[in-house]
Amino acid sequence: MASTVGAVTDANAPDTAALYPATRLESARKAAADAGLDALLIAPGADLRYLTGYQALPLERLTCLVVPAAGDPFLVVPELEKAAALASPAGRLGIDISGFGETDDAYAMIARRLPANLRLFAVDNHMWAEKLLAFQAALPGAQAGLAGDVLSVLRMRKTPAEIEALRRAGAAIDRVHRRMGEWLKPGRTEREVAKDIADAILAAGHVTVDFVIVGSGPNGASPHHEVSDRVIRAGDPVVVDIGGTTADGYCSDSTRTYAVGEPPAAFRELYEVLLLAQTAQTGAVRPGITAQELDAVGRDIITSAGYGEHFIHRTGHGIGLETHEEPYIVAGSARALEPGMAFSVEPGIYLPGMFGARIEDIAVCTGDGGERLNLTGRDLVVLPA
Amino acid sequence: MASTVGAVTDANAPDTAALYPATRLESARKAAADAGLDALLIAPGADLRYLTGYQALPLERLTCLVVPAAGDPFLVVPELEKAAALASPAGRLGIDISGFGETDDAYAMIARRLPANLRLFAVDNHMWAEKLLAFQAALPGAQAGLAGDVLSVLRMRKTPAEIEALRRAGAAIDRVHRRMGEWLKPGRTEREVAKDIADAILAAGHVTVDFVIVGSGPNGASPHHEVSDRVIRAGDPVVVDIGGTTADGYCSDSTRTYAVGEPPAAFRELYEVLLLAQTAQTGAVRPGITAQELDAVGRDIITSAGYGEHFIHRTGHGIGLETHEEPYIVAGSARALEPGMAFSVEPGIYLPGMFGARIEDIAVCTGDGGERLNLTGRDLVVLPA
Repeated sequence: MASTVGAVTDANAPDTAALYPATRLESARKAAADAGLDALLIAPGADLRYLTGYQALPLERLTCLVVPAAGDPFLVVPELEKAAALASPAGRLGIDISGFGETDDAYAMIARRLPANLRLFAVDNHMWAEKLLAFQAALPGAQAGLAGDVLSVLRMRKTPAEIEALRRAGAAIDRVHRRMGEWLKPGRTEREVAKDIADAILAAGHVTVDFVIVGSGPNGASPHHEVSDRVIRAGDPVVVDIGGTTADGYCSDSTRTYAVGEPPAAFRELYEVLLLAQTAQTGAVRPGITAQELDAVGRDIITSAGYGEHFIHRTGHGIGLETHEEPYIVAGSARALEPGMAFSVEPGIYLPGMFGARIEDIAVCTGDGGERLNLTGRDLVVLPA
Repeated sequence: MASTVGAVTDANAPDTAALYPATRLESARKAAADAGLDALLIAPGADLRYLTGYQALPLERLTCLVVPAAGDPFLVVPELEKAAALASPAGRLGIDISGFGETDDAYAMIARRLPANLRLFAVDNHMWAEKLLAFQAALPGAQAGLAGDVLSVLRMRKTPAEIEALRRAGAAIDRVHRRMGEWLKPGRTEREVAKDIADAILAAGHVTVDFVIVGSGPNGASPHHEVSDRVIRAGDPVVVDIGGTTADGYCSDSTRTYAVGEPPAAFRELYEVLLLAQTAQTGAVRPGITAQELDAVGRDIITSAGYGEHFIHRTGHGIGLETHEEPYIVAGSARALEPGMAFSVEPGIYLPGMFGARIEDIAVCTGDGGERLNLTGRDLVVLPA
């Protein structure tokens, strides 16, 4: 019957209440009203979980939280999901949860419950196109926008409970990095190493493995290389970028670049520049600095050392219930950091055909500076070859 | 840096070529043209993988296959994904693969390459709302539709290589069901049992665990119950609905309902009705029967026995690169089955507060009948209590 990835997690267990306070629906309603939106329409995903604690997967049948700017929020679910929705943290919120049958039109059902003069509704950014088009058809007089414009502002500023959840996720992925010497050895393929890492990610306290990048030698020069059958050789630099999701829904993401045996001198030189850049960037995190300024702190160091054209991506991305969310630390973003924002700081230098390096920590903006949530050493680790 | 779930799979390995023939792009172009669509816009997901073999995850940066009705298809990817895209099966197709930088407008870039008089474009059904709205803004004169209307017709009719992949997936999940007696015992919680099952799903030849439902006693009466901390007791009926995805991208999904020790007589009675219904339905699979007729074959038997109101969902869903896809076996669908269609046959009977039962096999419509891809016994298995 196929319902939910992560079904064996504690996702919808009642003890997640502290992470998902009941006040968020009212905060979202107010933010929507302030932004001139008449209603938010939220399908399964991180926004739904953030607002209600309910973890549901996007499926062909519609599940949708409706938050009218004026009026009470309600949840519409397929009849056969109703028991699960009521048993989830959403069941505690005191909102109406309505089921619909296999041949009912859930979009029309929602449209009838919205004000007749609805002008502007906003859907969650990840709602499936088929659902958005169905809402556009069911609400012909209204314009569609993105709920992320208001919700990302709420989600971006983490509560202390959320920071603590991210701290636990960071500690979990750090435990995996500390064991890298067990697996990363000459003669093994990237794929073999990645399989061991994936097992360790689960054993370290995650419920899903979200990604495992093992980029050895020249493969490290492609930032989103995943794994291959390339055999790791003595002297190879290896980029290892890994992350997972913990039972309470929060994500980890940390990169270290290792050397398996003594690497080329040119790599050590590059790595020292990168280390300086990343250290300067994590040290520069503080309330008020803008995303583009933080990006420039590292980019300037890398550019001054002559590697500017080889730092081919932004500095980082926000993290929380999703691995990639606001705020993005990127050139062109004048967003000022605020206490509670959590994001990756992950500059990289990539020399095509040769090797690459990236160092990544999750950082949180605090009241007067920053806190790193990944605490494994950042100096180059040379593993035995 | 966080790229792809399933990074440690062989997803983009070149040996998947037989499953992803290069002819599909032309079939899709022709189907789009025949349907009056000027272009298909396909973001990462099952449609992209079906058309190109490229497995990429939906992320905030746009990756998009463009299939113009008149003209050559092309793939637009973030610059830092370009190496991975070229190394994937998509790199063999001989199509243009263009990268864009961190601050480029990928939507405008695509709009410029489309005909100026574009009237109707179609996006993949699961494209994120933020991307669809961005395309609607970048193509202001054009109307948006769903690519699924044409692609599902192609994807629904599996090739022999796809059927073989589904057969392998079916055999893998059957191996897990055959071991159920190792885990399903009185005194254990549903969650403990589900954890063991999840490990076994991976060990049996899947690369991801897609869902694990263990519904014991009254929990079995909620079709989409997942797991809980309920302790399984002697005499409990237990619904076990499980599935995963194999390395080549195809999904498994099979349900068996077990009894842990002798169940109540009322349960045995219900189970016999269900078994008759499911057996009649799998036996009725043949070219030409409609989805609603196949649904009715089981529903009529269950209704005649007095359980009609307790069969609260459709009979089944198509399966392939996604666990839920066309064709849906549901009342109201006049779609006639054709050779190559693969779908679940999973009637269920649910008595609230008491127990439930469901039996599910994946079936394939053949040239003159049907083939079941799940072959564990369907008679009630009573495990030792």
